[in-house]
Amino acid sequence: MNIPQSSFPRVIIIGGGFGGISLAKKLSKKEMQVVLLDRHNYHTFQPLLYQVSTGGLEPDSIAYPIRKVLQGYPNFYFRLAEVNKIDTGAQKIETNIGAIGYDYLVVATGSETNFFGNQNIEAKSMAMKTIPQSLNLRSLILENFEQALLTDDLHERDALMNFVIVGGGPTGVELAGALAEIKKGILPKDYPDLDTRRAQINLVQGSDRILPAMSEVASRKAERFLEGLGVNVWKDVRVLDYDGKQVSTDSNTSFETATLIWAAGVQAVTIKGLDAKELLCRGNRLKVNRFHQVEGFKEIFAIGDVAQMETESFPHGHPMMAQPAMQQGRNLGENLVRLVDGKPMKPFVYKDKGSMATVGRNKAVVDLEKFKFQGVFAWFVWMFVHLYFLIGFRNRLVVFINWVYNYIRFDREARLIIRPFKNEYKTSKSRRI
Amino acid sequence: MNIPQSSFPRVIIIGGGFGGISLAKKLSKKEMQVVLLDRHNYHTFQPLLYQVSTGGLEPDSIAYPIRKVLQGYPNFYFRLAEVNKIDTGAQKIETNIGAIGYDYLVVATGSETNFFGNQNIEAKSMAMKTIPQSLNLRSLILENFEQALLTDDLHERDALMNFVIVGGGPTGVELAGALAEIKKGILPKDYPDLDTRRAQINLVQGSDRILPAMSEVASRKAERFLEGLGVNVWKDVRVLDYDGKQVSTDSNTSFETATLIWAAGVQAVTIKGLDAKELLCRGNRLKVNRFHQVEGFKEIFAIGDVAQMETESFPHGHPMMAQPAMQQGRNLGENLVRLVDGKPMKPFVYKDKGSMATVGRNKAVVDLEKFKFQGVFAWFVWMFVHLYFLIGFRNRLVVFINWVYNYIRFDREARLIIRPFKNEYKTSKSRRI
Repeated sequence: MNIPQSSFPRVIIIGGGFGGISLAKKLSKKEMQVVLLDRHNYHTFQPLLYQVSTGGLEPDSIAYPIRKVLQGYPNFYFRLAEVNKIDTGAQKIETNIGAIGYDYLVVATGSETNFFGNQNIEAKSMAMKTIPQSLNLRSLILENFEQALLTDDLHERDALMNFVIVGGGPTGVELAGALAEIKKGILPKDYPDLDTRRAQINLVQGSDRILPAMSEVASRKAERFLEGLGVNVWKDVRVLDYDGKQVSTDSNTSFETATLIWAAGVQAVTIKGLDAKELLCRGNRLKVNRFHQVEGFKEIFAIGDVAQMETESFPHGHPMMAQPAMQQGRNLGENLVRLVDGKPMKPFVYKDKGSMATVGRNKAVVDLEKFKFQGVFAWFVWMFVHLYFLIGFRNRLVVFINWVYNYIRFDREARLIIRPFKNEYKTSKSRRI
Repeated sequence: MNIPQSSFPRVIIIGGGFGGISLAKKLSKKEMQVVLLDRHNYHTFQPLLYQVSTGGLEPDSIAYPIRKVLQGYPNFYFRLAEVNKIDTGAQKIETNIGAIGYDYLVVATGSETNFFGNQNIEAKSMAMKTIPQSLNLRSLILENFEQALLTDDLHERDALMNFVIVGGGPTGVELAGALAEIKKGILPKDYPDLDTRRAQINLVQGSDRILPAMSEVASRKAERFLEGLGVNVWKDVRVLDYDGKQVSTDSNTSFETATLIWAAGVQAVTIKGLDAKELLCRGNRLKVNRFHQVEGFKEIFAIGDVAQMETESFPHGHPMMAQPAMQQGRNLGENLVRLVDGKPMKPFVYKDKGSMATVGRNKAVVDLEKFKFQGVFAWFVWMFVHLYFLIGFRNRLVVFINWVYNYIRFDREARLIIRPFKNEYKTSKSRRI
């Protein structure tokens, strides 16, 4: 791995997400050797992935090269690597580019889509947790319409234009809203020879309200916004299976669709050697104490989605979102310095800055501690906050310009099938002359 | 294919490049049914592909959805399709989405990389004629540096940081210049633990000057610019073979490299049924008369790179570039209308607007009919002209902002490995602990 020995203690951070990057920044210029590993050479701003899937933003403007974030930091090493195993006894990790020892190890591997063991759904549905996944979804959505043009079979055409999104959290809500706006604003112009009014957008939620982590008023308002956009919202419906054509549920409903988008849950990404049953909570999260130490270890920490710190206000751990990850990264950064200096660590206290979701143009819901508001102002707040947390001046500028352009023109120009996605739905029957 | 019969004559255009799009625009609102077919759902602005490969621009900002360009045109049909065969006798074409008859057929399929029959080079080198190819090259360049970090074998590390570009035309020159700027401005900051001074950029040209289609002063100046940036320019050297590691040439030189970029030539894209030997000129171009009619046909036309119209000033056809294609598209558009109206067609006259190439920051060469100039002003002219011909206001704005940002910051932020490219060069030997 070609990382020199140093007289400073070595901190290895696995994962360059919100948690890992915040931590690395805090440790810059401290007397520590920091090694950051990630499978990608870029940080992904996951909250905006749905805009990549729906052609509103380029993938490159919500990703940022990790090397660039941490340019100029002394004693900092980035390696593009996948971690295969943690050897907690020998204090080293094994990766696809070799093994390396650590003084402190921080697991910040984040989360991946949780299919709850359903292999059919895993094989046939679309997830949206990474940039390649979002680009695949973008390709598929556009291919479906091209395909719908070619068939005379109305049943098949409807299935190609029917989108079923499972999961009424922010991702599902935001995606459903964006698809509804595409249906309304772009499809009729792009496909004048297709009856795009037949396109359907279905949002399926297992519980009795969408955005269950937000306030009831936010849920109610978001649902009303979605309905105003023509989205069919199905509550208390759980999807059971999908064979690539038919979605079966536990209610008196089923959907015929070429596109099932699975946004119904996430689970922490575990690593061999630190995946013993007794360490893992629900969703594979690692149980940590108030100092982010993984239970039973003094020198292994976990932050972000992968960590479950059970506190009075959050008995099942903090929400798996950017804010807790960033705050934890910063807190751990300070604590590692204190630890090395022989000072006592400070327990982590989460400062809830509120939560928000956008449904569409002029339509968002925001829950702050003291205020809850919805509509145009909420939408501007949502945009401002997302621009603020995006990494990189150029990214902010390009995203801002795209948003202004899309707002003024009711458009989303990144509707390009750059790498086609091979969907099994396409049958020979639909190839008509 | 679900295209209705119409009382207007049907024009089928194969290819949505510069020629096909210009023609389709000219035919809008005329009494004709226009069917445009392309393998991609977007138009590619090929002159800027090298900036995608080198992280200066997002792919989405040099591509434009074809449906969007031709939105609102009546009697216009776009289909995402690959043409398998032209049946000139029955006046129909066969595609992967069915067959369709034509009254007029326009072949505007453009060109692809010409490997001159060398299968080794075709299999192991990188081409740069499409957006996916450019993204593969971007991934490979970045992966090479990540890989170079990991090896202690100096020989191997040098090969990973050695770039060999074959072909001294605008593509090769522009790419070499961009790589040299990355070496100088970005690598030392991104890879502080790698001796990036060892990186080499080689531009290999078969003839005695680079940019052979431009004036001698442009060639000389471009070469001086490249040398100033540290590019090794090899003239009168022809590459013979490449086994994935070693490039052999006809001179007393060979190169050890993980990355051979082939920009040494293009050939027209032919279609079965219109590829008889007697129809094709050098580089598979279709011989056309002054009205773009393919020799022997009244109703089949060819424009752009695929067409060879031999005139006094251009005995081997017009240059395979955007300008002739666009002018031909417009001329053919007018002529088709005249043809349908029973009026005589107007022969095509090419208006040479000059040519230009950029080497790097403040360094470009421009040949106009009356003026030839190089340097800062030429660079601004180059940028202005490229922005002007880019399709779409949003694309222009985003490209402009990226250029301003890159200029001020000496940066190129789109250095993301979104889809890794699998290169065979990577050996197990280089996986070091």
